[in-house]
Amino acid sequence: MPVYKAPLRDMKFLLNDVFDYPGHYASLKSGENATPDIVEAILSECGKFCEEVLSPLYQPGDEEGCKLEDGVVTTPKGFKEAYEQYAMGGWQGLSAPEEYGGQGLPASMGLLKQEMMGTANWSFSMYPGLSLGAMNTIYLHGSEDQKQTYLVPLTEGRWGGTMCLTEPQCGTDLGQVKTKAEPQADGSYKLTGTKIFISSGDHDLTENIVHIVLARLPDAPKGTKGISLFIVPKFLPDGNGGIGERNGVNCGSLEKKMGIKASATCVMNFDEATAFLIGAENEGLNCMFTFMNSARIGTAIQGVGPAELSYQWALDYAKERRSMRALSGKKDPEHVADALIHHADVRRMLLTQKAIAEGGRGMLYYAARVADHMVEGHAEGDEQKADKYDDKLGFLTPILKGFLTELGNEAANIGMQVFGGHGYIREHGMEQIARDTRIATLYEGTTGIQALDLLGRKVLLMTQGGAVREFTLIIANFARKHLTDKRLRPFAVELLKLTAQWNLLTVRIMLAARKDRDVVSAAAHDFLMYSGYVSMAYIWARQAAVAIDKLDNGGDESEEFYKAKLATAEFYYERLLPRAQTHATTMLSPSKNLMQLDAEDMSFTA
Amino acid sequence: MPVYKAPLRDMKFLLNDVFDYPGHYASLKSGENATPDIVEAILSECGKFCEEVLSPLYQPGDEEGCKLEDGVVTTPKGFKEAYEQYAMGGWQGLSAPEEYGGQGLPASMGLLKQEMMGTANWSFSMYPGLSLGAMNTIYLHGSEDQKQTYLVPLTEGRWGGTMCLTEPQCGTDLGQVKTKAEPQADGSYKLTGTKIFISSGDHDLTENIVHIVLARLPDAPKGTKGISLFIVPKFLPDGNGGIGERNGVNCGSLEKKMGIKASATCVMNFDEATAFLIGAENEGLNCMFTFMNSARIGTAIQGVGPAELSYQWALDYAKERRSMRALSGKKDPEHVADALIHHADVRRMLLTQKAIAEGGRGMLYYAARVADHMVEGHAEGDEQKADKYDDKLGFLTPILKGFLTELGNEAANIGMQVFGGHGYIREHGMEQIARDTRIATLYEGTTGIQALDLLGRKVLLMTQGGAVREFTLIIANFARKHLTDKRLRPFAVELLKLTAQWNLLTVRIMLAARKDRDVVSAAAHDFLMYSGYVSMAYIWARQAAVAIDKLDNGGDESEEFYKAKLATAEFYYERLLPRAQTHATTMLSPSKNLMQLDAEDMSFTA
Repeated sequence: MPVYKAPLRDMKFLLNDVFDYPGHYASLKSGENATPDIVEAILSECGKFCEEVLSPLYQPGDEEGCKLEDGVVTTPKGFKEAYEQYAMGGWQGLSAPEEYGGQGLPASMGLLKQEMMGTANWSFSMYPGLSLGAMNTIYLHGSEDQKQTYLVPLTEGRWGGTMCLTEPQCGTDLGQVKTKAEPQADGSYKLTGTKIFISSGDHDLTENIVHIVLARLPDAPKGTKGISLFIVPKFLPDGNGGIGERNGVNCGSLEKKMGIKASATCVMNFDEATAFLIGAENEGLNCMFTFMNSARIGTAIQGVGPAELSYQWALDYAKERRSMRALSGKKDPEHVADALIHHADVRRMLLTQKAIAEGGRGMLYYAARVADHMVEGHAEGDEQKADKYDDKLGFLTPILKGFLTELGNEAANIGMQVFGGHGYIREHGMEQIARDTRIATLYEGTTGIQALDLLGRKVLLMTQGGAVREFTLIIANFARKHLTDKRLRPFAVELLKLTAQWNLLTVRIMLAARKDRDVVSAAAHDFLMYSGYVSMAYIWARQAAVAIDKLDNGGDESEEFYKAKLATAEFYYERLLPRAQTHATTMLSPSKNLMQLDAEDMSFTA
Repeated sequence: MPVYKAPLRDMKFLLNDVFDYPGHYASLKSGENATPDIVEAILSECGKFCEEVLSPLYQPGDEEGCKLEDGVVTTPKGFKEAYEQYAMGGWQGLSAPEEYGGQGLPASMGLLKQEMMGTANWSFSMYPGLSLGAMNTIYLHGSEDQKQTYLVPLTEGRWGGTMCLTEPQCGTDLGQVKTKAEPQADGSYKLTGTKIFISSGDHDLTENIVHIVLARLPDAPKGTKGISLFIVPKFLPDGNGGIGERNGVNCGSLEKKMGIKASATCVMNFDEATAFLIGAENEGLNCMFTFMNSARIGTAIQGVGPAELSYQWALDYAKERRSMRALSGKKDPEHVADALIHHADVRRMLLTQKAIAEGGRGMLYYAARVADHMVEGHAEGDEQKADKYDDKLGFLTPILKGFLTELGNEAANIGMQVFGGHGYIREHGMEQIARDTRIATLYEGTTGIQALDLLGRKVLLMTQGGAVREFTLIIANFARKHLTDKRLRPFAVELLKLTAQWNLLTVRIMLAARKDRDVVSAAAHDFLMYSGYVSMAYIWARQAAVAIDKLDNGGDESEEFYKAKLATAEFYYERLLPRAQTHATTMLSPSKNLMQLDAEDMSFTA
């Protein structure tokens, strides 16, 4: 079985050389303790944990899956021990506020941790990942008492958390939520209803599970404006940090899924469960959206992680497996055939994976800096600052989640393709990566929803194109600075063209949408993918610029490392970026070609 | 569980109106009995069998899978009974020669049957599909005695067949085959070796299994020129059409796969198994290539089938499931939300599936006419005629197999996407389609191998671009004929541009490849995909032309049917065909961006 290796050299290149995290952390209050040596020690320690503990559980966890017996969910063998190590190591509180037991490091440190954990073993990483969602929600919207009661044991990793949104009749359209919460004399509520697709809904990793649940008060307005948010603990807190009475919430069944089988996806039945309101009445969806942005960036990791993992294993295979001779002549004359890696078409596949993994990682780290500022705004109670960075992040989030998870699927499937028929066989693990990754474009808002959020909400409705203008200005300023360098000029020229085009496309869609609202939905997917390719082009150009600088002036890495960065940037611009032009063409295609057929005329087979 | 419906109206439209199969069959000797009423009766009967017998076994077959116990492979519950019905119905011999017990109908009729069976239940269709491979090989290369002994029971469906090519160390690169065949005094051979990935290698559906095996004679030349072909029956024939002694061939294990779990994929151990040479010594690979073309067209069906099945189920769901309001205003005001189908982005997904299913089906039926002529050439012993059509088919085959299976995967994944999170859950069946389809780009030659076969072999080496010139001439002639019709003109103009571009691209690659052989491998994938999009554009234009004619002059179908064809053709040209331009750009990208990195510098993670 192949084993995950933490890509620490690439991570450090991006953090230190491309995005100046040392400078960034020095500017943050939470960054006080995130000095370069501490960051390096944490990354290295986390990498070791992922390589040695989580990676070996990846395949066995898929084979065994989770079990529900007598109402109790059991995770695969080894998960409990691994989680204990994780919790004991204080990893859950890495970026959590110190006043609630966390280490108070910047949010981005948590993302780096999540990236490595999610790449080594996505299913495992779901458990602490969902807890983080609950922690963020309680931190931002809970009362001080709720923070003391729930946030502290969650931060310790002693308790786990979930986010209970989806119901059988609605996922995206949360206005249809039916779960009811009846107020009780003591100020608590009795919550009744069924939630589905609840990740980590039940498991044996923690002594308690804190469910964050969307539900309706009896007199609530219809639709999205009548949803409130509740805390429903599996065991009621005993008031001393321990657990008391069992609450009326149970796992009714486990979903049988295509992948992430070691992650328990539960149908949760709430039967007059004791619940506590969090935030204001009927403000539940607003509270939930805070969670959304961070959850979606968390999910974007699932675009990068599988690309990295699948690339690591495919590259090893391509160096070992021999088939045919390279077209340009024998490369391994002492062997019966050349290694796969000598075939240009195989390299096309491998470099696509590499460009996605390293380009996507760069996009994540770029966004993580913004997230750090937003979190700091919240921590300082500076809502203006928090909102400013939340807006910036809100533009990047759907691009990252939507685009990167689509490309993550492509990369995972390429990994299978490099293995040929062996890619389809379970023992090699390549098909598991593809199955596990497939969820990423579906949950936390499908790609279609990300696309609509980006184009319809963030770009058109909220900023009338301003979000694109702001981001393209950043890109264009970078590009102009590098026009004079002969080696960077091709990247810079292309970026300048793309920034102009991106704005032009936005305006054209905006004008078309005034006459025909369907245009927004018709163009959204292509707009999202286009935005993704251009954003990744910016990130690759930044990597290329640093590589050239280091080649000229020396850096921590070898010459080969920087040359490989430059070569991968070239590959991206010449072989992947041209896809943006297809999206540019099709996003302007009239909505008529989608809407003209009557629903009943979509098929004549019955 | 959703159920397959045979798309008979679409099939008849393509057969009767677009590709004039009645006229085509009237021109064939084997078409004597394929009169329109017989064809219709067969399609309808086959459709019923697929809908009522095979489709209900689709999901249970995946859940149960195949079992190997005490050396015996058992197929899932119901498969044996379904196969009995299939064999009793004479379906296996539909297109087989009458002198060996078949019905002597044209080869294309077999393809129509395979399409419906493969769409309803791909795993099931693998068993008779592999038998067909064995039948074709024995028919074309076997002695009369071998035909009487093996072909007759295979045609009856009483015996099954396999094709044993792959070994642990080699799949594509068959020159590395190690399996040994030792000549015996009686003219037979003792065959020893291990074959992997053997579909239908063992099962309980037939009383005997006829393995067609690639192996080496003791004094054979190295590489591909030293491979011979053998028949190795599971039970030796008793000379009276029955079975005798058990032969030394056994299923060592079943592969655990991502999908097609009801299809037994076996490791086959040959231990001094009695074998009979088929064809001439050391000519095994040539003999096998006859099988290849038909097997690859058979596999191309797996691009179309999943698109059809996934579309049928996704369309149903999109009409029922309600989420949000359409951007252009309420469509189902009496309901809490609008059906998914009213969202433009969902229609984009559904129409992509539809365009792939119906466009791909058209491509298959176009090629099947060519196959009919080739088979007739063989039957008549007219090798010149057979070769002529074999060449034509040889150009289409990699496009069909390579391009359609890539798009089949896209369509299957779109089906999951339409279902949102529910697409990931097994009970809906959408993820099974995606898992089952995933094999299609891997076996019978990966997409990379199809691409190299198309560009390197069929286009450049064998015809110096002639194959493209010949096919584009057909397309251009069609386009010119329709330039004057206002409604067809946009299709015709686009096709003329594309035919010119296709030739130009071919020449440019040919010239570049003279200086740099890697160019062929570097460009192959994009060339294949480009060829696919242009070919499908031709097929969609032909469907549009007929639809317009029928709208003007009346036809068997409703006006809505023809309008839907036209709308789907428009959709294809405006939203999918632009992808060809990205492939055109990237195929000319220098091979340097793939080859410049040292294999050791592809990663710095270790």
